Amino acid sequence: MPVTLYDLVGSDASRPFSPHCWKVRLALLHKGLPLQAVPTSFTAIPAVEGGASTIIPVIRDGDAVVSDSFAIAEYLERTYPDRPTLFGGEGGRASARFVEAYSNTMLHPLIAVCAAPDIHDMLDPADQIYFRQSREKRFGRPLEALRDGRAEAREALQARLGVVREVLKRQPFLSGDAPLFTDYIVFSAFQWARITTPLELLDADDPVFAWFERCLDLHGGAGRSVDAAQDREAA
Amino acid sequence: MPVTLYDLVGSDASRPFSPHCWKVRLALLHKGLPLQAVPTSFTAIPAVEGGASTIIPVIRDGDAVVSDSFAIAEYLERTYPDRPTLFGGEGGRASARFVEAYSNTMLHPLIAVCAAPDIHDMLDPADQIYFRQSREKRFGRPLEALRDGRAEAREALQARLGVVREVLKRQPFLSGDAPLFTDYIVFSAFQWARITTPLELLDADDPVFAWFERCLDLHGGAGRSVDAAQDREAA
Repeated sequence: MPVTLYDLVGSDASRPFSPHCWKVRLALLHKGLPLQAVPTSFTAIPAVEGGASTIIPVIRDGDAVVSDSFAIAEYLERTYPDRPTLFGGEGGRASARFVEAYSNTMLHPLIAVCAAPDIHDMLDPADQIYFRQSREKRFGRPLEALRDGRAEAREALQARLGVVREVLKRQPFLSGDAPLFTDYIVFSAFQWARITTPLELLDADDPVFAWFERCLDLHGGAGRSVDAAQDREAA
Repeated sequence: MPVTLYDLVGSDASRPFSPHCWKVRLALLHKGLPLQAVPTSFTAIPAVEGGASTIIPVIRDGDAVVSDSFAIAEYLERTYPDRPTLFGGEGGRASARFVEAYSNTMLHPLIAVCAAPDIHDMLDPADQIYFRQSREKRFGRPLEALRDGRAEAREALQARLGVVREVLKRQPFLSGDAPLFTDYIVFSAFQWARITTPLELLDADDPVFAWFERCLDLHGGAGRSVDAAQDREAA
């Protein structure tokens, strides 16, 4: 029986975009587990699995219902120890929290500034109301005003990516010779941007760009199964 | 036979201060290996072990001579697999590179601005010449001019420590329930500051401060074996 993944989407159910859901999708593929995605809008989250969680991703695996991307990865590692490891041992599991903290505190806020207005435009009307209210409260300004800060956010992002660049000088993936969950954590932040905004956040000659392309190729090119966002104004 | 650690010092041989040497000292203690430190000044480094390295730490363990703190940790893990692990598995080893990159690129440059003038004052005259030339080239300004940027550097540091704070919300050490090499990496950056500059870089109510204190207690309080820098102007 496949693992059910409640996967965040906007009005186009074929374009899941949540970074946290992407982490779980790649973790399931890494473990070689069949998955069935259930496209889920923001306002449908409270009804998922009878109100199991206020956030997605949520998975159902047989009788088990688990929410939160990291908790799901830990569940998969614990439940399927004979399949390819997501953490490479207990030290890797603990250190993956560090990479998650880096991604959540240093990358996500800047990517959100760049992508939030575009994400709004991808949503159904009911979700747009929820999204605008919650994000304007978080950012303290109208969504449209974020566009003025995009160039600055993109520039700040380049400096913060020095950490990732430094690691990639030594090894092709953040987790060493092959990808583990730490790679999926950082990859999913940029996959979120790739699917939601036509603004290219990485320079083509950046080693982070090359690593991101390598990650897009993983598991049969799963990351490429959703096209990059098109410039709606140019189209 | 103890492991020889060539350990960077200034004019006071009892105050080793290099962050990279501290990482190795804690790694040796973690492995329960007896160590003999050889206090070594900047200008004495080229003569260490017949010119084995242009940088310290360098260790000699029997016939093996190894330089570079991370390479030394890897050597110790490989050579003493039955002693307490430094990485907690291969995933932990790879992810420790990420923590090292964070520490080297996000913390060290700011701590260096705060501490460099004080480090200069700790050195013998010959080392002072080397230190001034190399650091003024790196910073692009006179050492004394760095003092003007200390408040700003300290403030920038607080923001970058959000990553560490986020991890410490979940677990007492960066490596989980108990410290591993990743803790020693970040600890040693602040130990470097503690020993060289009277400027307190961490606020007393910061969870990072409490974690740093926990790290000072490890291995019989090894970190406390060198007193914190005193304010020379106040003394």
